[in-house]
Amino acid sequence: MARTADKTDIPRRLTDAGYALFTQNGYNATGIQQITDQAGVPKGSFYNHFDSKEAFAGQIIRHYAEWVDQSWQSCLQDAPADPLDTIRHLFGKFIRHHEQAVCPGCLVGNFAAEVSESSESCRAALSAVMDTWRERLAVLIRQAQQAGRVRQDLDALTLAGFFWDAWEGALLRMKVEHDSRPLKEALSLMLDKFFQP
Amino acid sequence: MARTADKTDIPRRLTDAGYALFTQNGYNATGIQQITDQAGVPKGSFYNHFDSKEAFAGQIIRHYAEWVDQSWQSCLQDAPADPLDTIRHLFGKFIRHHEQAVCPGCLVGNFAAEVSESSESCRAALSAVMDTWRERLAVLIRQAQQAGRVRQDLDALTLAGFFWDAWEGALLRMKVEHDSRPLKEALSLMLDKFFQP
Repeated sequence: MARTADKTDIPRRLTDAGYALFTQNGYNATGIQQITDQAGVPKGSFYNHFDSKEAFAGQIIRHYAEWVDQSWQSCLQDAPADPLDTIRHLFGKFIRHHEQAVCPGCLVGNFAAEVSESSESCRAALSAVMDTWRERLAVLIRQAQQAGRVRQDLDALTLAGFFWDAWEGALLRMKVEHDSRPLKEALSLMLDKFFQP
Repeated sequence: MARTADKTDIPRRLTDAGYALFTQNGYNATGIQQITDQAGVPKGSFYNHFDSKEAFAGQIIRHYAEWVDQSWQSCLQDAPADPLDTIRHLFGKFIRHHEQAVCPGCLVGNFAAEVSESSESCRAALSAVMDTWRERLAVLIRQAQQAGRVRQDLDALTLAGFFWDAWEGALLRMKVEHDSRPLKEALSLMLDKFFQP
């Protein structure tokens, strides 16, 4: 890509390139030179915006979480009224996203595996994102419990934590099997069987 | 570590060092020089035993799977007779392993996140290991179904696949939260609630 002259655009180009490369190759296999090359910006400009690759990765984690938040809100716009069907609708859309993605998988899960031991700042960023996602899903599960659509003998936040664990694990298996079946099975088992009243 | 003169020991030293470094730092952050340094063998000896770092990683995946197999068989020796309690016993021991490990987590899950996109040979090795683990757990789940201890409306292999997904996801959250609670919760939710007849 040609080097850009529009300096105001550089942080966004860097985060877009960083997200793509981190998703495809992981944290450690991605160098700053690759990121600036893919972004089409001079290598030196990286350090005008980020103190280190680790700080940049923290920014990418938050950037990815914002994208997921926006997708979540957008999916809620045309979601069914029933709260259990809303969860099915949301994660059905996420499955289609992963089926169509060049590099399917979740940056948060991938980074949890790769860098949570070696980078305290990344680990803290991942933990904050996971907390937010768990609480957001727990809101819908609580609504589904109140509507009598989900079992009430288990705390909504506990169910939400377990749901995300199963989801992240199914994403790992999807990456290995090159098949979205683990995601579909996990969603169906939880919503149609395990979470039923 | 001092360079060893015992050449017969070199492959084992390399795999032990590779396992430790891959678990701690991941695939891409681990160099061959680091592996041979930690193994205490000359760098050149690596290529006497392995064609490439990728081939070595495939060997480490199989080596790790053998270690899990041996742990599984060993745990079965003093397992309770009831097949559901056997599963609880096995995974309770795995939880204690992760609680005591310097670098907790599962090499198969970590590699699934990091290298399944970039290495076809590693992806195939991971897929084979996951298949074996799923079938092995399905045997116990099927026995528990026959004993009336696990619901019979779902196929044992499907339940086993879901169980491992939730387990691998809980391991990722354990790495991020530095707490084995996700593992304990996942085990208890599945065996005491979701899998109940």
